[in-house]
Amino acid sequence: MLLINATLATMDGSPAYGLVKQGAVAIRSGQIAWAGPASDLPGEYGQDERHELEGRLVTPALIDCHTHVVHGGNRAREFEMRLEGASYEEVARAGGGIVSTVAATRAASREQLLADALPRIDAMIAEGVSTIEIKSGYGLDAENELKMLRAARAVAESRPVRVRTSFLGAHAVPPEYKGRPDAYIDDVCIPALEAAHAEGLVDAVDGFCEGIAFTPDQIARVFDKAKSLGIPVKLHAEQLSNLGGTKLAAQYGALSADHLEYATAEDAAAMAKAGSLAVILPGAFYTLRETAAPPIEAFRKAGVPMAVATDCNPGSSPMSSLLLSMNMACTLFRMTPEEAFAGVTRNAARALGLEDAGQIKSGLRADLAVWDVEHPAELAYRIGYNPLWKRIFGGAL
Amino acid sequence: MLLINATLATMDGSPAYGLVKQGAVAIRSGQIAWAGPASDLPGEYGQDERHELEGRLVTPALIDCHTHVVHGGNRAREFEMRLEGASYEEVARAGGGIVSTVAATRAASREQLLADALPRIDAMIAEGVSTIEIKSGYGLDAENELKMLRAARAVAESRPVRVRTSFLGAHAVPPEYKGRPDAYIDDVCIPALEAAHAEGLVDAVDGFCEGIAFTPDQIARVFDKAKSLGIPVKLHAEQLSNLGGTKLAAQYGALSADHLEYATAEDAAAMAKAGSLAVILPGAFYTLRETAAPPIEAFRKAGVPMAVATDCNPGSSPMSSLLLSMNMACTLFRMTPEEAFAGVTRNAARALGLEDAGQIKSGLRADLAVWDVEHPAELAYRIGYNPLWKRIFGGAL
Ligand SMILES: [Zn+2]
Ligand SMILES: [Zn+2]
Repeated sequence: MLLINATLATMDGSPAYGLVKQGAVAIRSGQIAWAGPASDLPGEYGQDERHELEGRLVTPALIDCHTHVVHGGNRAREFEMRLEGASYEEVARAGGGIVSTVAATRAASREQLLADALPRIDAMIAEGVSTIEIKSGYGLDAENELKMLRAARAVAESRPVRVRTSFLGAHAVPPEYKGRPDAYIDDVCIPALEAAHAEGLVDAVDGFCEGIAFTPDQIARVFDKAKSLGIPVKLHAEQLSNLGGTKLAAQYGALSADHLEYATAEDAAAMAKAGSLAVILPGAFYTLRETAAPPIEAFRKAGVPMAVATDCNPGSSPMSSLLLSMNMACTLFRMTPEEAFAGVTRNAARALGLEDAGQIKSGLRADLAVWDVEHPAELAYRIGYNPLWKRIFGGAL
Repeated sequence: MLLINATLATMDGSPAYGLVKQGAVAIRSGQIAWAGPASDLPGEYGQDERHELEGRLVTPALIDCHTHVVHGGNRAREFEMRLEGASYEEVARAGGGIVSTVAATRAASREQLLADALPRIDAMIAEGVSTIEIKSGYGLDAENELKMLRAARAVAESRPVRVRTSFLGAHAVPPEYKGRPDAYIDDVCIPALEAAHAEGLVDAVDGFCEGIAFTPDQIARVFDKAKSLGIPVKLHAEQLSNLGGTKLAAQYGALSADHLEYATAEDAAAMAKAGSLAVILPGAFYTLRETAAPPIEAFRKAGVPMAVATDCNPGSSPMSSLLLSMNMACTLFRMTPEEAFAGVTRNAARALGLEDAGQIKSGLRADLAVWDVEHPAELAYRIGYNPLWKRIFGGAL
């Protein structure tokens, strides 16, 4: 397949989106065989089936590198109760909060979890997403954590999308371990991780290091197990306060530290040294009406690459639009449209440890998005509007 | 046509969305003939063609009562320049700001304006919108104001959607009248209004009362002309400061005052007395990173009905999602999901002076939306997700 008469935003790290006007992309065997100015197209591709793009913009397909898109139930009624003035106690008494998602997730079969997730997955695909990271973390026991991860793997069998799983047993202390987080980590979380890994369900290990979740010491025990199993780690860190999670993640050479509203320049330096990315999640910031923004300028100065993701989850970010995440990253955090776009392509791939996606470069997977826009800045500029024209997944339109 | 096995959110003013479980809606001649609990369905509708909705939610179709969706060009590059640190002067030198939209709108043919608007219109329709208000205001001379309004009328001929136009000649002082706003109002705006009205292009007259636009006295001259022509008025008021626009609008019995970030309890009282609605536009608040929220509690107390709209425009709200406006009204302004939903149905109809839409009630137009959700609160709860299943427009699926 040969895409011609396209503007390419290669996102290959060269300046200004790596823009190529009058570009062409040759696709063979599901891979990008060649990309560049049409005038330089090697003769060998001249006979490939041509797709005339009439000047449309071709970019890497999008990558959502932080989601909880597999989960039971929704929390619309809780959202409504809060806005109607209910106190946290009243919401809790009505069964609200993360425990309601845990209960709904435990009650759902794997098939139901998959069926509930697919409309959200379809919304992501409709915006040009090719790769989705999906976390466990609402099962909070071995059986249900594995069920969530199996549902996540099943997403990739049900839709033309790539899935990377993260084991997030250390997401919250389940009701039956209330007040005994250490026992939960040792008796449930770590054995569940081992079981999930044995079944090939774990691409990365994640945790939530926060006052309402787990301490750095507790997370470290999970990360030690991940290390011994050879699984890369990442961490929800400094979202609501600074507990030192980012530095812990850096010590373990984490793929990324995520959220980071309360991270410091020192944290950014530690991340830069470790090669960890910052995953910026404006949907949660927006929903929680947080006022402290992550230290974007410190990440820039320290040279920490930034990714941007939806954090799609039923409580703090019931958002399934990665395009909207880009707009929020710009509007709320003053990231540039180019930073936001690198955040959902090149850097999102890196946050998942993927070397074969996120750029338009020969040898990479032919996961591409074709947009009805003239300039890539339009993708972050518009709000709640999807200009996708076509998506190419593994070389297939 | 008979819709059965539906949950109805009639939005007819009764509590809790006017919810009817196990409801039915009979549609004849493009109108709602009957709606209520299926058990009460009169026998005469029993033979109508049945549509089994499997418990889905049926609501009035949505109404976007404040948009600038017809306009030339986009301002993505300006959005990007600002985020890359350009000063307002640099943006202005590069041709940015509202004058760039005026120039692009003047340069575009009516056909081009229509073609540019249709993808945005289609995005709105895809979210269940049946009625869209469209303003002029980027032509700023008779020829181009009329061209915009003709393009707005053409929208309703090109798509299954109803359009209500507002003449917004008093939107900004065009470059050729810089420093001479009074001359612009008297020599251009008012004659343009007369010409547009003579052509049947004006359903309402709007203005922008603000330091960067027009004073209450200047707006009053436009409103006097509207009054003499028998056209209802509305006003962009107290968006960036309190200039007294809301009280002026109330004096003229305006359909609505819009934006209102800097309105006071006294303004709310004047609106209540005049029967004017408050149109809440969270997209502009969000994009401009405004910190003063409109006085929602004062509107509640004074009994001012609130509508919610996208304000779809290329500068301060490049947003085409009315569902997202609902979420923003809740998240940013603490409106309840029910208030937000009344704001895009019953109250939006009222803000446009429409008595035949915005509720599920016999005798009204059969403009309905069918959603894949269990409860209407889900419509405001989700972010960047569209659960529309089908839209019914004038009785047609
Ligand atoms: Zn998360
Ligand atoms: Zn406006």
